[in-house]
Amino acid sequence: MTNILIIGGGGMIGQKLARLLADQGWQGEPAEVTLYDVGFPQNGADASRRIVGNLTENGAAVGLASTRPDIVFHLAAIVSGEAEQDFDTGWQVNMFAGWSLLEALREQHEASGGTYRPRVVFASSIAVFGAPFPDQIGDEFLTAPLTSYGAQKAISEMMLSDFSRKGFVDGISVRLPTICVRPGKANKAASSFFSSIIREPLNGRKVILPVSDTVRHYHASPKSAAGFLNHAAGLDTGQLDGRLSLNMPGVSCTVAEQIQALSDIAGAGTVALISHDEDPEVAKIVGGWPQDFDATRARALGFQAETSFRDIIQTYIDEDLGHS
Amino acid sequence: MTNILIIGGGGMIGQKLARLLADQGWQGEPAEVTLYDVGFPQNGADASRRIVGNLTENGAAVGLASTRPDIVFHLAAIVSGEAEQDFDTGWQVNMFAGWSLLEALREQHEASGGTYRPRVVFASSIAVFGAPFPDQIGDEFLTAPLTSYGAQKAISEMMLSDFSRKGFVDGISVRLPTICVRPGKANKAASSFFSSIIREPLNGRKVILPVSDTVRHYHASPKSAAGFLNHAAGLDTGQLDGRLSLNMPGVSCTVAEQIQALSDIAGAGTVALISHDEDPEVAKIVGGWPQDFDATRARALGFQAETSFRDIIQTYIDEDLGHS
Repeated sequence: MTNILIIGGGGMIGQKLARLLADQGWQGEPAEVTLYDVGFPQNGADASRRIVGNLTENGAAVGLASTRPDIVFHLAAIVSGEAEQDFDTGWQVNMFAGWSLLEALREQHEASGGTYRPRVVFASSIAVFGAPFPDQIGDEFLTAPLTSYGAQKAISEMMLSDFSRKGFVDGISVRLPTICVRPGKANKAASSFFSSIIREPLNGRKVILPVSDTVRHYHASPKSAAGFLNHAAGLDTGQLDGRLSLNMPGVSCTVAEQIQALSDIAGAGTVALISHDEDPEVAKIVGGWPQDFDATRARALGFQAETSFRDIIQTYIDEDLGHS
Repeated sequence: MTNILIIGGGGMIGQKLARLLADQGWQGEPAEVTLYDVGFPQNGADASRRIVGNLTENGAAVGLASTRPDIVFHLAAIVSGEAEQDFDTGWQVNMFAGWSLLEALREQHEASGGTYRPRVVFASSIAVFGAPFPDQIGDEFLTAPLTSYGAQKAISEMMLSDFSRKGFVDGISVRLPTICVRPGKANKAASSFFSSIIREPLNGRKVILPVSDTVRHYHASPKSAAGFLNHAAGLDTGQLDGRLSLNMPGVSCTVAEQIQALSDIAGAGTVALISHDEDPEVAKIVGGWPQDFDATRARALGFQAETSFRDIIQTYIDEDLGHS
């Protein structure tokens, strides 16, 4: 049975991925899925095993690697706002823990005489890019991050690429759009409001929009994010010609278009729960973010996302509204 | 007096830079120059102080930072061929030692109440780029390195950028072209032959060309490299708009053009000392290297290099021939 490890398996996307694997298995067969995280939600996704632990702890990566998972999803991270506030923790979790994981997997690769070479799927982010941008970012645009989080993600991608080039692991990095609509509570990511302005009104609660509604950004649903990771795990990486980091497809729209889509689905009364109160700090961070991607390579490789923000809202309604 | 630290000050470029500072001082005034390296050449450049040490040793970075240099040139590295052969040492020297340096400087920044914020000039490399390339690489092209050395340099750039963005240091990364003509012995860099095919014949010795003479690559002299670093140290980094890594100007030419320039300067008899014997491993590495850059930003910021390969050979003859 395929042995799958999801590091960060207690997080929102980790749980979506675990549910997808529990429902569909791995390539049609049941899989042994281990979730690893600092904590898990109540009534969480089914899995073969849940391990509570912290990848930054001494020996944690070595322990996980010693089980020789066939596929490792590495989703564990401190989010952007938190990494910006706590420099040390951001680098420890988002970079050094990933290095330890790669080293531990390499040790198993070498101990196996080279036969063990796990697929590693790394959840990266469009935060690897920094302004100024072209209107639509192509697949050969430079990574010049403007946040610590973005730098840590870009660096982790490069480490994974080099370990893969050397044949120690078989890696791929998936640069996720801003995931929207996130269920549950707001988190410390500066992007959190993109979800809140949809989720809160749909739950009958007031919400504050901290930026101008002319802000344009790039989104995919949690369902698509889990789909990207699952698709990446099964891809023939020989097709990537050594460029293992892929910009995912998504929906580019303004906040005004987001709100219009909400109005189309739920009516003007729901939209009236949104009020505008600019937060200069959030506006500044978001002003440095990309607006659109062509995602040519990822689309050609079969990655699929929603094609409208209405679909993104509908996914939230179908999957999460009333469940959280 | 300006306190200048050159880490890697015993190396070829470090020595050129030390000589430049000994001759011209720092912005017209004498400077206190400390050279730090694992070893120094005999009859080396003058300096206020030479320290023998290894930046990978525990406490080494902390000790260097405690002297609070105004300017830190970080040139210490394992070269590309060696980093490819010895994965662990490459990462330790080319990445982790740089991280320790940044952390040690940040500690001094914080201990000073934020007043200490040294200029850090990092010697990066065009090895941060990996094929396939456009014919001429622009300033917004992605860094997708195809060697461990290139990955380590690209990662170090991003760390320096983030420490600078946070205000801990005031950094700039200078992506050096392949430096040519290197005096002295061949080193383990895969690019070493670009120098050998000029240097050895000029010294009356036979040499083997391990690649086809149609190979096109991008060069600057050691004198220009020292000039780039010196210019970077004095630049107002506010002009960089947060993009702190710069592709340096240089000369793009084929090996055939290099050999023609040698013939123009030294005659057919000298060129006859070159024989062709393809080394598939070197040819493969070099095949993944860039051919040309526009270097628009660096030129606009006043960085200057040779404009022909003949000038590059002449610089070697003027500065190094007969001295080594």
